[in-house]
Amino acid sequence: MLVLCWKEVKVLEVITAEEAGFCFGVERAIDMVLKAAGENEDLNVYTLGPLIHNPQVVKKLEEKNVKVASSLAEIDSGIVIIRSHGVAPEIIEKAREKNLKIIDATCPYVKNAQKYASQLVDEGYQTFIYGDEDHPEVQGIYGASEKKAIIIREKQDLNSVELKARVGFVAQTTKSPESFRDIINLVITEVKELKVFNTICNTTDVRQSSARKLAEDVDIMFVIGGHNSANTTRLAEICAATNTPTYHIETAAEIKKEWLSGKNKVGITAGASTPDWLIREVVQLMNEENKDVNVES
Amino acid sequence: MLVLCWKEVKVLEVITAEEAGFCFGVERAIDMVLKAAGENEDLNVYTLGPLIHNPQVVKKLEEKNVKVASSLAEIDSGIVIIRSHGVAPEIIEKAREKNLKIIDATCPYVKNAQKYASQLVDEGYQTFIYGDEDHPEVQGIYGASEKKAIIIREKQDLNSVELKARVGFVAQTTKSPESFRDIINLVITEVKELKVFNTICNTTDVRQSSARKLAEDVDIMFVIGGHNSANTTRLAEICAATNTPTYHIETAAEIKKEWLSGKNKVGITAGASTPDWLIREVVQLMNEENKDVNVES
Ligand code: F3S
Ligand code: F3S
Repeated sequence: MLVLCWKEVKVLEVITAEEAGFCFGVERAIDMVLKAAGENEDLNVYTLGPLIHNPQVVKKLEEKNVKVASSLAEIDSGIVIIRSHGVAPEIIEKAREKNLKIIDATCPYVKNAQKYASQLVDEGYQTFIYGDEDHPEVQGIYGASEKKAIIIREKQDLNSVELKARVGFVAQTTKSPESFRDIINLVITEVKELKVFNTICNTTDVRQSSARKLAEDVDIMFVIGGHNSANTTRLAEICAATNTPTYHIETAAEIKKEWLSGKNKVGITAGASTPDWLIREVVQLMNEENKDVNVES
Repeated sequence: MLVLCWKEVKVLEVITAEEAGFCFGVERAIDMVLKAAGENEDLNVYTLGPLIHNPQVVKKLEEKNVKVASSLAEIDSGIVIIRSHGVAPEIIEKAREKNLKIIDATCPYVKNAQKYASQLVDEGYQTFIYGDEDHPEVQGIYGASEKKAIIIREKQDLNSVELKARVGFVAQTTKSPESFRDIINLVITEVKELKVFNTICNTTDVRQSSARKLAEDVDIMFVIGGHNSANTTRLAEICAATNTPTYHIETAAEIKKEWLSGKNKVGITAGASTPDWLIREVVQLMNEENKDVNVES
């Protein structure tokens, strides 16, 4: 007997956010490190500080024989790699004095912030860096200003500063444009001349807004990245706020099939320290779900 | 019979606001005009446009034989005086070509705005003037920018402009710092580099806030200035808003004695186009009131 059978087959639609995972500067730095390690198997290769805070990436670099040095004092010979955050010029000089081969993977956007801080000081502006004093990027920019810049962590810090007539500003690349604007707001009416280099990198902003838009459009959202990664956690919060069920996962292995029951559209995004291959693993798992569905039908 | 008589005598206390009447730039321009007229009785002396909009001052200048020309076309020989508002460089050139003697009474603060607009254009910034296109001061600044600047009357005007990466701003000297800040606010997050010359003159601000403070402290307030003077009317509004009885008068002759009944402290301020002698007349009248009181007792 031939039974004509109609069955609706639901196929998961999987959409990855526009800006997900490594930013341009981090991807570039990792490429430079892997290239340096590949071409110099006879030399010691060090990054000055961990390249990023992702356990999977750290492991991969260790396999390629890339070591992490916490300062130049730990390095006697070989190659030293400057991270995307950059360093103060005096560190480069010291590395030179030690006859180390230097690979400068400072993100070009961070390099700009350094260059402009130095320019503002040269041009005689009272120079401010809006950023977190303890952050290595800010330390590098501060060094570039010949340690003449004043670091402002939040707008309240301005209260204790006597503003000069000519004032200049740069910002840590990961600051929010709105908070930078709030600071400029306080200064503009108090000075005669203000020169602002908007050195904020829009990666974070674009990532967050594209994640929000995607979350609003799908039935379930996966946010991939280290559980201790601040920017991934923030991404997950933003997605959850749209009321779409949101799961912050580190790898595909954490996904439970029942989460997908009754869902059609799956959205995926990832923090800035999440490598592409971890994203691909999740996408692949979703495709396998689809295959299962097809077999069952 | 000798009667011992105790009588409390009320004496009017008269306080003039800190910043009242002519601003620095207008006072300087009037001095320059009077000096030029005094030293050149054989020459025609013209101001290019009326020096200020105060009928008493205009009359005084006419007595000194200073004429008002509405354009260079009306002047064939003699002295031409540039007002505190300033003019475009091409006007100065034309006056030179006509062999006129030029006395440039442009306010130094306005001169700064002109200089900075020109500098921003030279440095390759997309240059904006925040001001009223029709105002002679703005026309002068625009001329100084080689007519390359974009004039923004209000922040909405920014919507129709495509911002470049490097943007520069100057402002008409009489704009409010808060409204200038609102405009900078909109721009700062949209550009890579922003250079702002805060060319706002704080005279208006200081005048208004010292008038407000004084009005709060006295029993009656006189605001002296042309009834059709916008800035005097604004001053009177600010004083009236403190709930202190406020009278906007043009001259001392308008004051009615009954206004003073039961008042102890009199506050006086004046618009930017009000000459000192009109202020002194009011102060003198109050002193005479005091004399009358003493006589009566
Ligand atoms: S490191 Fe990344 S976040 Fe921006 S400043 Fe460079 S692309
Ligand atoms: S004309 Fe007066 S208002 Fe300021 S800009 Fe000059 S002092």
